[in-house]
Amino acid sequence: MIKAGIIGVTGYAGSELLRILMQHPEVEIKTITAKSYVGMKYNEIYENYRDINESICEEMDIYKLAQDCDVIFMALPHGVATKVIDEKVLSMTKVIDFGADFRLKYADVYEEWYKAEHSGRELLKSAVYGLCEVNRQDIKNARLIANPGCYTTCSILSLRPLIAEGVIDLDSIIIDAKSGVTGAGRGLSTSSLYCEVNETIKAYKIASHRHTPEIEEQLSYACGKDINLIFTPHLTPMNRGILATCYAKLKDKYTYDDIRKIYEKYYGDEYFIRLTKEGVFPETRWVKGSNFLDIGFKIDERTGKIIVVGAIDNLVKGASGQAVQNMNILFGLPENTGLQLVPMFPA
Amino acid sequence: MIKAGIIGVTGYAGSELLRILMQHPEVEIKTITAKSYVGMKYNEIYENYRDINESICEEMDIYKLAQDCDVIFMALPHGVATKVIDEKVLSMTKVIDFGADFRLKYADVYEEWYKAEHSGRELLKSAVYGLCEVNRQDIKNARLIANPGCYTTCSILSLRPLIAEGVIDLDSIIIDAKSGVTGAGRGLSTSSLYCEVNETIKAYKIASHRHTPEIEEQLSYACGKDINLIFTPHLTPMNRGILATCYAKLKDKYTYDDIRKIYEKYYGDEYFIRLTKEGVFPETRWVKGSNFLDIGFKIDERTGKIIVVGAIDNLVKGASGQAVQNMNILFGLPENTGLQLVPMFPA
Amino acid sequence: MIKAGIIGVTGYAGSELLRILMQHPEVEIKTITAKSYVGMKYNEIYENYRDINESICEEMDIYKLAQDCDVIFMALPHGVATKVIDEKVLSMTKVIDFGADFRLKYADVYEEWYKAEHSGRELLKSAVYGLCEVNRQDIKNARLIANPGCYTTCSILSLRPLIAEGVIDLDSIIIDAKSGVTGAGRGLSTSSLYCEVNETIKAYKIASHRHTPEIEEQLSYACGKDINLIFTPHLTPMNRGILATCYAKLKDKYTYDDIRKIYEKYYGDEYFIRLTKEGVFPETRWVKGSNFLDIGFKIDERTGKIIVVGAIDNLVKGASGQAVQNMNILFGLPENTGLQLVPMFPA
Amino acid sequence: MIKAGIIGVTGYAGSELLRILMQHPEVEIKTITAKSYVGMKYNEIYENYRDINESICEEMDIYKLAQDCDVIFMALPHGVATKVIDEKVLSMTKVIDFGADFRLKYADVYEEWYKAEHSGRELLKSAVYGLCEVNRQDIKNARLIANPGCYTTCSILSLRPLIAEGVIDLDSIIIDAKSGVTGAGRGLSTSSLYCEVNETIKAYKIASHRHTPEIEEQLSYACGKDINLIFTPHLTPMNRGILATCYAKLKDKYTYDDIRKIYEKYYGDEYFIRLTKEGVFPETRWVKGSNFLDIGFKIDERTGKIIVVGAIDNLVKGASGQAVQNMNILFGLPENTGLQLVPMFPA
Repeated sequence: MIKAGIIGVTGYAGSELLRILMQHPEVEIKTITAKSYVGMKYNEIYENYRDINESICEEMDIYKLAQDCDVIFMALPHGVATKVIDEKVLSMTKVIDFGADFRLKYADVYEEWYKAEHSGRELLKSAVYGLCEVNRQDIKNARLIANPGCYTTCSILSLRPLIAEGVIDLDSIIIDAKSGVTGAGRGLSTSSLYCEVNETIKAYKIASHRHTPEIEEQLSYACGKDINLIFTPHLTPMNRGILATCYAKLKDKYTYDDIRKIYEKYYGDEYFIRLTKEGVFPETRWVKGSNFLDIGFKIDERTGKIIVVGAIDNLVKGASGQAVQNMNILFGLPENTGLQLVPMFPA
Repeated sequence: MIKAGIIGVTGYAGSELLRILMQHPEVEIKTITAKSYVGMKYNEIYENYRDINESICEEMDIYKLAQDCDVIFMALPHGVATKVIDEKVLSMTKVIDFGADFRLKYADVYEEWYKAEHSGRELLKSAVYGLCEVNRQDIKNARLIANPGCYTTCSILSLRPLIAEGVIDLDSIIIDAKSGVTGAGRGLSTSSLYCEVNETIKAYKIASHRHTPEIEEQLSYACGKDINLIFTPHLTPMNRGILATCYAKLKDKYTYDDIRKIYEKYYGDEYFIRLTKEGVFPETRWVKGSNFLDIGFKIDERTGKIIVVGAIDNLVKGASGQAVQNMNILFGLPENTGLQLVPMFPA
Repeated sequence: MIKAGIIGVTGYAGSELLRILMQHPEVEIKTITAKSYVGMKYNEIYENYRDINESICEEMDIYKLAQDCDVIFMALPHGVATKVIDEKVLSMTKVIDFGADFRLKYADVYEEWYKAEHSGRELLKSAVYGLCEVNRQDIKNARLIANPGCYTTCSILSLRPLIAEGVIDLDSIIIDAKSGVTGAGRGLSTSSLYCEVNETIKAYKIASHRHTPEIEEQLSYACGKDINLIFTPHLTPMNRGILATCYAKLKDKYTYDDIRKIYEKYYGDEYFIRLTKEGVFPETRWVKGSNFLDIGFKIDERTGKIIVVGAIDNLVKGASGQAVQNMNILFGLPENTGLQLVPMFPA
Repeated sequence: MIKAGIIGVTGYAGSELLRILMQHPEVEIKTITAKSYVGMKYNEIYENYRDINESICEEMDIYKLAQDCDVIFMALPHGVATKVIDEKVLSMTKVIDFGADFRLKYADVYEEWYKAEHSGRELLKSAVYGLCEVNRQDIKNARLIANPGCYTTCSILSLRPLIAEGVIDLDSIIIDAKSGVTGAGRGLSTSSLYCEVNETIKAYKIASHRHTPEIEEQLSYACGKDINLIFTPHLTPMNRGILATCYAKLKDKYTYDDIRKIYEKYYGDEYFIRLTKEGVFPETRWVKGSNFLDIGFKIDERTGKIIVVGAIDNLVKGASGQAVQNMNILFGLPENTGLQLVPMFPA
């Protein structure tokens, strides 16, 4: 059994992680921590765990955690992980970090977009970007995994084959993404109140969202060239789900089958990536509660552009599910161990 | 492996049943049928099953199903099961019926409330009412199980201990229940359109809903007396969930602990029934996606009444989960086999 | 033109009041105040007012307001109005208070339910309970109006004729009410976050909600006897609306027409109260955005009980609309001036 | 008083039209028709009109309507208006058509996108495209007005100034639009059921939606050149609202103020178009229930592109409100007569 610790268990991603790990056949949860709820029963906060999980939220003692656990999942606000993790921790255990601290290769880029100092520059080299379908070889031997963001997972995987194969114009990429409200977290903010979010839709952080450089960096690796693109997130009145509608100019004339072959080349063997049939497009309801990413596309001959649509559950493939997928890779388990979650509909 | 067949797999309960059975370690699904979708791939109707279930909807051939399957789940409109099931079928297989045809003991009562002839009177004797926590002894040896209704499961189990122990006035019972929209099914009706249901709440079928006699009959068994009560269903703008707020006059002065002991006597060992702590009340979000029934109560000394609140997921404990619980009992498995579903929140 | 001031304009009721007053032909809004937003443009908080209302939120100077305004609307947390209003203010202007401070006749009852000292006992005598359909004669000459609560308006008006005419057993009253989330206000609280409220329903403050004594007191006046009843509020995933499902034992056998005549006697001439036809029941969607209260009922002969259903928009008839109705009475205008709002559907 | 008739009053747009016209000071509604509800009281279908509108749905007799009414609003499925309207009708009355039949200049384009024969080619010349802010001069003297589509109104007006002034690359336009579910109408369809639409988002009719040629044609007029663009509609779980997120390549370097001046030049005097401040973007909640179109934009220097966001209430500015605005122009009234609707929030 893999002994796991969860730091920051009281956010939505932390709670979803617990749900997945409790149903994982190879994991024993040793410790859960939550700064604001120390000593409190977890199931008094998340009452779905009534009677089935009697854990108490503990204070974070990172070295004790490192000693007791084979893997630590950290779900903390950005800027905190770099202050908690050090070489000593990484010499004792594996760390999978949900935050942004170790996702970008260059601390300077982090500081530009996050408007904050990066206090863990020396660890950046150790970190592997945990996008499983792309980096699984590196993940296997990693000590520190930067679990990708929700928008980024959906956006990168939806577009990457087209970029890797050089079929789209790199200057033409636009990602128009729609997220459910769990993406905003459980913190108190007027803008997350039910009546402020229900029955409306908005774009936010236009051309300035922090997931932009993460998407750009990862897509750049696929083609060896720098990429600048537009990423526009939207807040949608639903609990879960991300839909990314991606646009790009095709460099040449391609048929549906040409592009289909590219996607099958990259994802034909991937358990968690499902390609929709021609004429069918992903909807977030079909992946809810699961670790799947659904991808569909359409070529618009009139404009010479391609529209790619990707859908994930932001709390699963966009956070906790992918984290567990990373754990499975780290510990040599089949990637879908404990993750063969059937999407729940209607949910 | 238990070989299972599903008749009427394209309703919401049918689809949820498939989700649960696919994750059940002892079940092999042999056949699924759906009158209006014969020959069609199930995952083109319910796209959540994309790539993970390649079943084709077949036409119902009841004797073939009976031959091939150890158990048949029937999710058909009321009045149809009685025409499909006969002694021959029951001599070959077990049947768990989701409909109302075999739930009421007396065909006359059925005919009064359903305004339709009952065409299976002779089979009524064979049927066992599949409320697992109450009837599990009878269920073990049953051939035909009438799976209880969603409102009824929640209402009966919430009130039954109080009635069995004789602490409430039988003339005083009022059940004010609130259901999510999956309870209305997937049929086409203006009243189920998004814009007709969203952002509003209504009571419907006041003092005339068909679940009323089912609740009354089952509660009567607990005390040996006839019961007439008020049951008021409400349609609530959410996909899943039933909350039953039940009111009754206490015959005497009781403390919280007095009543608590009664609930613990009946449900203390039940895996699927969770009692909330004093001052805490069930909410449908805490049971969503699971087979749990949460129960809490409050004594109002000012009026001498008790308020009991029960919450279930109508598609799981109120339909497909309970059906699988019945199957587990029928086949001698631990009742929670394949049903240790952690409620999903936020979902 | 009536010169009006609004204190506490940044809550949902305050904003709705502004919407109604802007469309009122006889009102000029002189001042709006909001403690936390002094100096800020109102339309930067509530952007629906972009370009059509350029008011600045001011600090509250109660005597200046009293001097400048013919009427002051106060939408403040309970316990604050008593500290702001005094004889001097009331000698200069009329006050319509949205809070609970002046609703209950006896300060002791207030202190028991609100767990707080009542600091305005001497003003209680001056206050008139602003339930327009009941108290319009007293309202005409009032200086200080306690605008009723949302749940209370709906509950009292739905049941009052039955109590005034003595047809129901006073010990048997149960009110099971369902409210939209605007009822919880705009304050920051985890329990008001979108993901905590969406896709779920719950009862709260069972047998302890502060609107209980308000309902009991007002209903007692209708029959001259003390009444104790059960009031159970529920939080429903929608922005607006209250549905009150009320239960009571009939003292005798009555036909639908008997009871209908009673409702028509009391409400037949009321513009804002609409009786549904036999077999039809109120739904909150049909009153959304309007000052209407819809009432329907059903007699259940099996149990000898009556079920009365009332529906209002909690922000209009349950708060700001009724406040304007009170203002119209105070200033001798037809009661529906500026309030002939057609309910908006779907909304 | 303008005598008005409404054909097809039982759709959502028809009902919203009635709401607006009832509050319009210069209109008398003479006749309402609804094919499937002839003889039925309108307020038994749309119960929000209980007691305040006692109209009966009549059968459509087009010549009688033309005789009795100064203006006829037609809300019929596409392909029907061309069969109902003829020269005789237009010689007797004005017609404002909500459908698509007269929106496209060329019948061939209609037939290509609508996959249906155009049976009213000779009337196309008479039709004026009723986009008020653009065509008000032509509208004044029109006999037949093609009321624009919902997506199209929002998209065209959001982009038009940029195209008219030649600042964007015409090959680069992408419109990613999100609509509430009222846009799908009140017809029975599994895809409009609550549980199929709630808690999910999807793109649909990608690169093939019928509003595409309407947007392209109107935008082409602004620059005298043919335009091909991508238009992607999305179905969003909310009742009302359209948000159009529009992308285009800027031909040159422009500052925020440069572009702001362009928008002010075109819309500075428009009552119904509201420009948001720099850094603020439209959200559908701020226009709900009103005839406003809110527009905001951002220049992304990194990519040289501009993102323009427009928001309307699809049933008001996207349908019935704009129809009334057209009527006001036709009859020489101030354009905002009866349309000074304050957006309702939260709604």
